[in-house]
Amino acid sequence: MKALVYDGPRRVSVKDVPDARVERPTDVLVKITATNICGSDLHMYEGRTDFDTGRIFGHENLGEVIAVGSGVDRVRVGDLVCLPFNVSCGFCRNCEKGLTAFCLSTNPDPRMAGAAYGFAGMGPWEGGQAELLRVPYGDHNCLVLPEEAREKQTDYVMLSDIFPTGWHSTELARVQPGDTVVIYGAGPVGCMAALSATLKSAGKIMVVDRHPDRLALVEQIGAIPVDDSQGSPVDRVLEETGGLGADCGCECVGYQAHDPQGNEHPNLTLNNLVQSVKATGTIGVVGIFVPQDPGSPDTLYKEGEVAFDYGMFWMKGQGMGTGQCNVKAYNRQLCTLIEAGKAEPSWIVSHELTLDQASDGYEHFDARDNGWTKVVLHPDGSR
Amino acid sequence: MKALVYDGPRRVSVKDVPDARVERPTDVLVKITATNICGSDLHMYEGRTDFDTGRIFGHENLGEVIAVGSGVDRVRVGDLVCLPFNVSCGFCRNCEKGLTAFCLSTNPDPRMAGAAYGFAGMGPWEGGQAELLRVPYGDHNCLVLPEEAREKQTDYVMLSDIFPTGWHSTELARVQPGDTVVIYGAGPVGCMAALSATLKSAGKIMVVDRHPDRLALVEQIGAIPVDDSQGSPVDRVLEETGGLGADCGCECVGYQAHDPQGNEHPNLTLNNLVQSVKATGTIGVVGIFVPQDPGSPDTLYKEGEVAFDYGMFWMKGQGMGTGQCNVKAYNRQLCTLIEAGKAEPSWIVSHELTLDQASDGYEHFDARDNGWTKVVLHPDGSR
Amino acid sequence: MKALVYDGPRRVSVKDVPDARVERPTDVLVKITATNICGSDLHMYEGRTDFDTGRIFGHENLGEVIAVGSGVDRVRVGDLVCLPFNVSCGFCRNCEKGLTAFCLSTNPDPRMAGAAYGFAGMGPWEGGQAELLRVPYGDHNCLVLPEEAREKQTDYVMLSDIFPTGWHSTELARVQPGDTVVIYGAGPVGCMAALSATLKSAGKIMVVDRHPDRLALVEQIGAIPVDDSQGSPVDRVLEETGGLGADCGCECVGYQAHDPQGNEHPNLTLNNLVQSVKATGTIGVVGIFVPQDPGSPDTLYKEGEVAFDYGMFWMKGQGMGTGQCNVKAYNRQLCTLIEAGKAEPSWIVSHELTLDQASDGYEHFDARDNGWTKVVLHPDGSR
Amino acid sequence: MKALVYDGPRRVSVKDVPDARVERPTDVLVKITATNICGSDLHMYEGRTDFDTGRIFGHENLGEVIAVGSGVDRVRVGDLVCLPFNVSCGFCRNCEKGLTAFCLSTNPDPRMAGAAYGFAGMGPWEGGQAELLRVPYGDHNCLVLPEEAREKQTDYVMLSDIFPTGWHSTELARVQPGDTVVIYGAGPVGCMAALSATLKSAGKIMVVDRHPDRLALVEQIGAIPVDDSQGSPVDRVLEETGGLGADCGCECVGYQAHDPQGNEHPNLTLNNLVQSVKATGTIGVVGIFVPQDPGSPDTLYKEGEVAFDYGMFWMKGQGMGTGQCNVKAYNRQLCTLIEAGKAEPSWIVSHELTLDQASDGYEHFDARDNGWTKVVLHPDGSR
Repeated sequence: MKALVYDGPRRVSVKDVPDARVERPTDVLVKITATNICGSDLHMYEGRTDFDTGRIFGHENLGEVIAVGSGVDRVRVGDLVCLPFNVSCGFCRNCEKGLTAFCLSTNPDPRMAGAAYGFAGMGPWEGGQAELLRVPYGDHNCLVLPEEAREKQTDYVMLSDIFPTGWHSTELARVQPGDTVVIYGAGPVGCMAALSATLKSAGKIMVVDRHPDRLALVEQIGAIPVDDSQGSPVDRVLEETGGLGADCGCECVGYQAHDPQGNEHPNLTLNNLVQSVKATGTIGVVGIFVPQDPGSPDTLYKEGEVAFDYGMFWMKGQGMGTGQCNVKAYNRQLCTLIEAGKAEPSWIVSHELTLDQASDGYEHFDARDNGWTKVVLHPDGSR
Repeated sequence: MKALVYDGPRRVSVKDVPDARVERPTDVLVKITATNICGSDLHMYEGRTDFDTGRIFGHENLGEVIAVGSGVDRVRVGDLVCLPFNVSCGFCRNCEKGLTAFCLSTNPDPRMAGAAYGFAGMGPWEGGQAELLRVPYGDHNCLVLPEEAREKQTDYVMLSDIFPTGWHSTELARVQPGDTVVIYGAGPVGCMAALSATLKSAGKIMVVDRHPDRLALVEQIGAIPVDDSQGSPVDRVLEETGGLGADCGCECVGYQAHDPQGNEHPNLTLNNLVQSVKATGTIGVVGIFVPQDPGSPDTLYKEGEVAFDYGMFWMKGQGMGTGQCNVKAYNRQLCTLIEAGKAEPSWIVSHELTLDQASDGYEHFDARDNGWTKVVLHPDGSR
Repeated sequence: MKALVYDGPRRVSVKDVPDARVERPTDVLVKITATNICGSDLHMYEGRTDFDTGRIFGHENLGEVIAVGSGVDRVRVGDLVCLPFNVSCGFCRNCEKGLTAFCLSTNPDPRMAGAAYGFAGMGPWEGGQAELLRVPYGDHNCLVLPEEAREKQTDYVMLSDIFPTGWHSTELARVQPGDTVVIYGAGPVGCMAALSATLKSAGKIMVVDRHPDRLALVEQIGAIPVDDSQGSPVDRVLEETGGLGADCGCECVGYQAHDPQGNEHPNLTLNNLVQSVKATGTIGVVGIFVPQDPGSPDTLYKEGEVAFDYGMFWMKGQGMGTGQCNVKAYNRQLCTLIEAGKAEPSWIVSHELTLDQASDGYEHFDARDNGWTKVVLHPDGSR
Repeated sequence: MKALVYDGPRRVSVKDVPDARVERPTDVLVKITATNICGSDLHMYEGRTDFDTGRIFGHENLGEVIAVGSGVDRVRVGDLVCLPFNVSCGFCRNCEKGLTAFCLSTNPDPRMAGAAYGFAGMGPWEGGQAELLRVPYGDHNCLVLPEEAREKQTDYVMLSDIFPTGWHSTELARVQPGDTVVIYGAGPVGCMAALSATLKSAGKIMVVDRHPDRLALVEQIGAIPVDDSQGSPVDRVLEETGGLGADCGCECVGYQAHDPQGNEHPNLTLNNLVQSVKATGTIGVVGIFVPQDPGSPDTLYKEGEVAFDYGMFWMKGQGMGTGQCNVKAYNRQLCTLIEAGKAEPSWIVSHELTLDQASDGYEHFDARDNGWTKVVLHPDGSR
């Protein structure tokens, strides 16, 4: 089969690799028809991780089931399915509580909980930027989609990762109807956080970024764009909230946060959030942070430490939730919202490409080129 | 009336001051019969805060109502009452949600939410280490005690602060029956956290400290004492939890955390907790941190920043709750547990003193002298 | 002052009565500018309760503060305020948990918890269908409105009862985003339940009634009207939910439920809900039921008993929440949604009348005359 | 293999039947070493259900894994496992939310959700009162026990049903530390509810029954026995709770509730609970009710209806949760409590019998003979 493989920092190419196949009785084999490039792919693409060359990218996957193992009872050949980026077993002590992002079975590294397709440090599972994908524990992992999804793949493929992840940030931040919410980052995940807060009837939603194309996207759905290259985002949020700060904060940037001058500060958005959010407020962090980052320009962060504004955080009695999203916790209900016509996450998609065009897509998306807000690949050449 | 006033770093004395009295129709006047010295009094006693000389200490108060304002409907003269250390109004937007530690009415500093009796930065309210105490919003603030409390004041006075605060740490840490819990700090609050975890039927409770008298107290109620002067507490916790880490962690030390060699590190317990607690676990922090600490030996912390092990915290998907305890959220149910004979928080009390002996009590408690685990004062000379 | 008083079954009139005034230091006096006729007023109007003649109706009140007692600290003369229909103290053991509909202080009948303005069996408090209203515990009870409310009183007055009550039914029913919801009753409360479910991004909302004007109202906000005079509502709900039943059910009718032929059956909507809602689903009941109803045509219900389909309820593992709404639990957040332009509850208002026209309003509303969906009175003659 | 089969009303016998075996790749085969007679077995034993003759009883099962299918990854031959009485798949929309008692895959009757071993109307699964048991979806269903369980089977076997079911009643009733709790029924499930409330630090636990052996059991763990043959249990509960009623109520009897004179009233415990529980309190119902009961002496209940004191229930704003227990929601944490020595559910076991003695056990347990409080069978003849 053809697959997009990592050739080294900022280089990917389409190669012929052995076909993915059913290996265990509980496996499902999927022909991929839509698979996204994700912001977290870029950490690997840039060579900032230990992702091995030759491995296949792709953890935001949707496609058609073409084979099932002998122990599969629910999923059937012909089903259109969306796969959570987390690879999980369904029966370990974390999965049984719904904490599928921290599965204790699918990552062979005993120090780690959780696995993903095509991801550095997240187990041996190959990615879906390829013609075929092996899905373990198929009855547990596959979300079977409604018939209309065949025509709306760019909406439904968002259920694999970024729509649930954006939603997760608002769950961690405990967004309630009427709340004011500040979101740092208007990338694909930040946009989905804004969409999620809208669906939860937040009273006022402010999104901080500086890329005009991204700020335009959040404005389209009724959020207030805050351009932090034009002034302090903290001041703006305080002004919009009567000086108290927002009820809830969402971090959708991660450790590669940059100031408007282009310098990387891993504590930038976290400390801004502490100041932007009210006393007793809650902050949800889905932007990625890692325990070691030898390439960081920040001395503390080389060992994963952040100069966090803890005194203020504690004095304000704030709470914080973090970590990768348990996609299965939300994908069914969000699927219902798409089907009911109440959510249309595809509004951020700027490009649909074939596998052969993927290398180009990576280059532009990595460069944050204006207008490249979200790229969907169709390995079956459907578009 | 006589009151214990602050004379400057490490100096307190009993002085004659104007009588406390009913000033507003909603006030209640209480004759204090039991009032504790708290670990947070020591921050002020040591001169590490901007507490003004001449002010009265004391935020853990119990006594008898001797007068009520014309707008008081529930509390009656003669009632024995325990006062939450938080001074709160009951009707602001935080109080109406039960967030009485962050009252927006009782602290005149607009940058601050929350007030307390006899506390630096927490409003103008005088403390209860005195013969009389003015209690604003008496119907809201007074917990009326059962008759038996007259004979068991050392149990019931713990409802003013440390029993609810210890409980709060286990609420923030989301302790469930069967959970493993690690608590950093076996001071009065850490002891109460251990008692709380016991009452919640935690499966295994580990408490980290190095003072033999304190470790002995937690062992008395069935917790596992972990002496961090004898080896890595993180290693010990991992060993006790099959390598996974504890389900829940409680921070009951605060920014003045010291290593066994006596050096202060504001990030010490926080980073140990990140390592001691499992992926997806939750950490509750009731030890005090402040936004500025010019006297800190830690450069970052002078401005309230802590070198926090954030990469690991995020990768493990941990959550954290912080801040002062909303005492009213718990004091009624904990009162019931004392009355039912299911909780006896007085087991930590080592000394009961008169007001005249209080200066001595401060000195020994501040020095962590062996055996001085908790001091109760009786300004009415009842003991 | 002028007030609308009860003269006996189906008779009300405007009379001169002694002015309401500040009686306690914690009282607030309000000049009423908007006050609604509520469906629960009709139970009293029809003579089905023991409401005394001469008492003043009106528990859905909004107006301007014209005097405050000496113990009032927050509310000021000139504030525009909306009053929860529940009269509550703020400091009893129920109020301190937010259960203000079950206040233990404000109802002198020791067998009852909870009080209301102008309501049979709910304490001595006079109603607000009058020029003036005495509001006890003013700092606790008054919701201070934003300035724009002066121009949008028909939206903001709904915060006194029916918007929070409709919301409460969806809280009791645990409506989550994406859920299917069935609501029995499209009266004012049922309409507000539909609005609430919409704000919570329910996936599909079905409302059962048979009055064309009411069904048209719910259709206007995107709900599916189900006319039970045209066929079994249970069958229709099962059909719309793939045979499983709705995730959540709301009862907004109460004991005076009628079948399409006009016969009263107190168990009608409850048993339909058990059948309409899925196994493991939850039902929220805000329609009124009472412990004795000597005038009921149903023998069991004369003593408050209902022939409830309990075997099916239990086998399906359903849950149920009931009772009057704790208005203060929701009125602030719903106020925010009105101010943010995300909710416009006034869409159901059909008539705005003066106090002199109120008698006419009662007659038409009680008769369910077509087009009389909700009546707002303006005792100040403002409209 | 040998198995206990149903021969008709009040008749069971040991017969040779075909061996249970691994039929699907996800199956596990267990050699049963401990299996209980349950109160719900008696409904079938008495011929009150449509349980087919020749079927095998037994849904409270523990044993050793002797074979696993090719798709089983976690459970291993030799593991000692306890099986939830619910047979569930782990991947349907109910199971993925943890609602394993309402599995949509394992019961072929499309009108029903949920399945169980050896149970009328709960799917084709054979019971475990036999030498061998086939366990479908073994990785999902098996709770692997600690090594010490081999010596304490009478404790650990309670994890299959009654300990989680008793716990579930306290979860449905929302028991919090310090709460007063009233439990109707001191049978095995009621005893476990009392144990659960104790573990949750309820302030006062009252258990209503009239069998001296059962009342003695609850008294042993510190609950207050209430003998309803000696006076009104409602009066007693009100007296113990200052006239307000208990905070929480648990129904552990079901539709075969009898008054002290021996007459069956399906509404007896429910209406007593409405009166015994305070306004705003919650009631958890785990006693069984069924949609049809042609043999009932109560006319309404023949069709599953109960004359429920709904007017009072609503006026008090009570809530109610019902239904079979999702055993997997609790069995791991309760297992931890047994292992930690904090719970010893075997205290209720009165008899341990071989399979050959089971018929005798059924007869005595069904007759509620004094001293027959709980029977454990050992099909392997281990005792």
